[in-house]
Amino acid sequence: MPRNAFYAQSGGVTAVINASAAGVIEAARRQPDRIGKVYAGRNGIIGALTEDLIDTSQEPAESIAALRHTPGGAFGSCRYKLKGFDKNMAEYRRLIDVFKAHDIGYFFYNGGGDSADTCLKVSQLGEKLGYPIQAIHVPKTMDNDLPLTDCCPGFGSVAKYTAVSIREAGFDLASMSSTSTQVFILEVMGRHAGWTAAAGGLAAEKEGDAPHLILFPEIAFDEERFLARVDACVKRHGYCTIVASEGLRNQDGQFLSEAGTKDAFGHAQLGGLAPLLAQLVKDKLKRKYHYAIADYLMRAARHIASKTDLEQSYAVGRAAVELAVAGKSGVMVSIVRKSDSPYVWEIGEAPLAEVANVEKKMPRDFIAEDGFHITDKCRRYLAPLIHGEDYPPFRDGLPRYAVLRNAPVPKKLPPFELKK
Amino acid sequence: MPRNAFYAQSGGVTAVINASAAGVIEAARRQPDRIGKVYAGRNGIIGALTEDLIDTSQEPAESIAALRHTPGGAFGSCRYKLKGFDKNMAEYRRLIDVFKAHDIGYFFYNGGGDSADTCLKVSQLGEKLGYPIQAIHVPKTMDNDLPLTDCCPGFGSVAKYTAVSIREAGFDLASMSSTSTQVFILEVMGRHAGWTAAAGGLAAEKEGDAPHLILFPEIAFDEERFLARVDACVKRHGYCTIVASEGLRNQDGQFLSEAGTKDAFGHAQLGGLAPLLAQLVKDKLKRKYHYAIADYLMRAARHIASKTDLEQSYAVGRAAVELAVAGKSGVMVSIVRKSDSPYVWEIGEAPLAEVANVEKKMPRDFIAEDGFHITDKCRRYLAPLIHGEDYPPFRDGLPRYAVLRNAPVPKKLPPFELKK
Repeated sequence: MPRNAFYAQSGGVTAVINASAAGVIEAARRQPDRIGKVYAGRNGIIGALTEDLIDTSQEPAESIAALRHTPGGAFGSCRYKLKGFDKNMAEYRRLIDVFKAHDIGYFFYNGGGDSADTCLKVSQLGEKLGYPIQAIHVPKTMDNDLPLTDCCPGFGSVAKYTAVSIREAGFDLASMSSTSTQVFILEVMGRHAGWTAAAGGLAAEKEGDAPHLILFPEIAFDEERFLARVDACVKRHGYCTIVASEGLRNQDGQFLSEAGTKDAFGHAQLGGLAPLLAQLVKDKLKRKYHYAIADYLMRAARHIASKTDLEQSYAVGRAAVELAVAGKSGVMVSIVRKSDSPYVWEIGEAPLAEVANVEKKMPRDFIAEDGFHITDKCRRYLAPLIHGEDYPPFRDGLPRYAVLRNAPVPKKLPPFELKK
Repeated sequence: MPRNAFYAQSGGVTAVINASAAGVIEAARRQPDRIGKVYAGRNGIIGALTEDLIDTSQEPAESIAALRHTPGGAFGSCRYKLKGFDKNMAEYRRLIDVFKAHDIGYFFYNGGGDSADTCLKVSQLGEKLGYPIQAIHVPKTMDNDLPLTDCCPGFGSVAKYTAVSIREAGFDLASMSSTSTQVFILEVMGRHAGWTAAAGGLAAEKEGDAPHLILFPEIAFDEERFLARVDACVKRHGYCTIVASEGLRNQDGQFLSEAGTKDAFGHAQLGGLAPLLAQLVKDKLKRKYHYAIADYLMRAARHIASKTDLEQSYAVGRAAVELAVAGKSGVMVSIVRKSDSPYVWEIGEAPLAEVANVEKKMPRDFIAEDGFHITDKCRRYLAPLIHGEDYPPFRDGLPRYAVLRNAPVPKKLPPFELKK
């Protein structure tokens, strides 16, 4: 008898995480002898804990296919990490109750580093609590900080958004700089690693191209050097475009957006990193600035997603099912690079124990010696990840994104109170 | 003998102002008996004053055609307004010297309301100073605030960007709202009129769609009503997406981003409107927020330009030349709407005296009675302006934008000092 599968989305969503969902669901539908229904957790692992399951078998094939071009998480995501087995046994027993009640034998979790930890723990339910379940992690994070994979699905699209945006803003700024704005700052997400900011560097293909400067979380901010570089850039090119990671830190390791922005009463001032840098530019260099803060726009921008990223996102979903059917558990699907140019990649796998809670930072040799741009080595790594376009369908000028029925699976168990 | 033409770009640039440049230059090239060379002013009218002219005849046809898909201002723009004839006669005499020296008989100025004023003054050079020149204004402004035209080239693309972006962010937020962010604010440009913010409203096609709230400069901000609406929205839908115009004002008519954001020493705090609204949401409603500030990204986003806007931008450039050849002067090319659906429009003209320095605000009946969304009437007006996509060519994952040679025309006159 085929057993059912559980699939859920976790952590910050991306423009292409639903492509992974499509990969999982479509692959499972091709294995009716091995996999019964795919139940999606409403809002990630919370859906499993609260028995809030969605019956994806009620979605027509067209709706599942439409997930490929729909941003966000179609089943809802969550920020919720399972505690250790010794810390909250009740949650694990509840998971087992829900899995048993719905005959769930496969667990596909689609997320980043924290989620990999959750997936690892579920993979240990057999050994620790006598409920064997095959748990496979489907990688996803715009932060690109998972180890043991060439890249993380979701990152390529954010990378493309950043590079396209700073190129476009650069053309705008170049026009304005003779009498108006001369410095433009694009603040991008990425609290701990500079991958997203680095991707902006792809737009600079020759001397003078935007972005002129990149500010990485990995390089401590030095106000004097920064201002000197901006000033030199404006004097040379007439203007200066900057991609700044929100995770930029000062010499003491504090986030710049938090440090030094207290008012006289110690209240943190409003605003983030970009206005802080802009103020420096205005006060110290007397240059007119503009800044943009991309935030969710960058990770939701399905309209400018990378085709490569989309293909990888779908492929890791499909491969997760294939690995499960082949008897695997406790692994993450990975992407293995075979060559840079042409970019050749294949699906691999990595043990979850080596993935969970490990953060892959930018290698130092991906950042220029002066700390303000990317190296050719970094460019060779990043370039293929933004290749290709895959536009969503438009009607009346707007992209048509899928909203699923998300029919609930009837509950069989008493309610469960989540720990806050 | 055909006389030469002067063309320049003025004010904030857009994703499609270069399409107007292509329209002017290509139309002029089709009239070799009437129009000699098209000289572009480097950085708008400043190029005329400083005799810094660009010989567009040196650009191959492919480069001019590529302007159609290139954002920013290919010849540079400026923020520089000619003073009245009585205030700075030296500038007018200088313009005449430059026009005479280069046999310029046509003046095409591509800009918004301030630029229309400059164009009007140039059109009066004959009557006031005995140098007849045919001056035609080519409308352009993302603000959509020019009178006597259905819409302003540049606006449709900004409108599309806003609607697409808030739709995408809405899908993202919906996924996150169970355990994380519940309020998302997109701050858009538009200091004096709410057109750009209104355009975000197009993404909301049915109850519950993003954006849930729009904040217009035309409607005084009422903190209590705002918070009540956000709270009700989160309670009903689980989350709330907001498009806020940077020009939002309080009951006293002050910009919200400037009022009430002083620290204890009276220094203006960093950051703009979005962080201020976000802080309110956090302090008063205890909801987690995210915000994005679109700034230049929205007006430079050629990758998601409106096809309708692009076609109109090209058409107004071409029509300016046709009007000039037909003997017209002192007019702005306009767009005349013949029907909403299907959208039928044609080229018209409007007297510059009635255009210059007039700002078209949002009609009150375009804004919902409660002040928080657009009406169906507004929707009928806006909808066709974002229709159609016209993607730029991509290579290696990035859009290929044209950079012209911009060969200078040899100077014939002594230098001229600009008034600061």
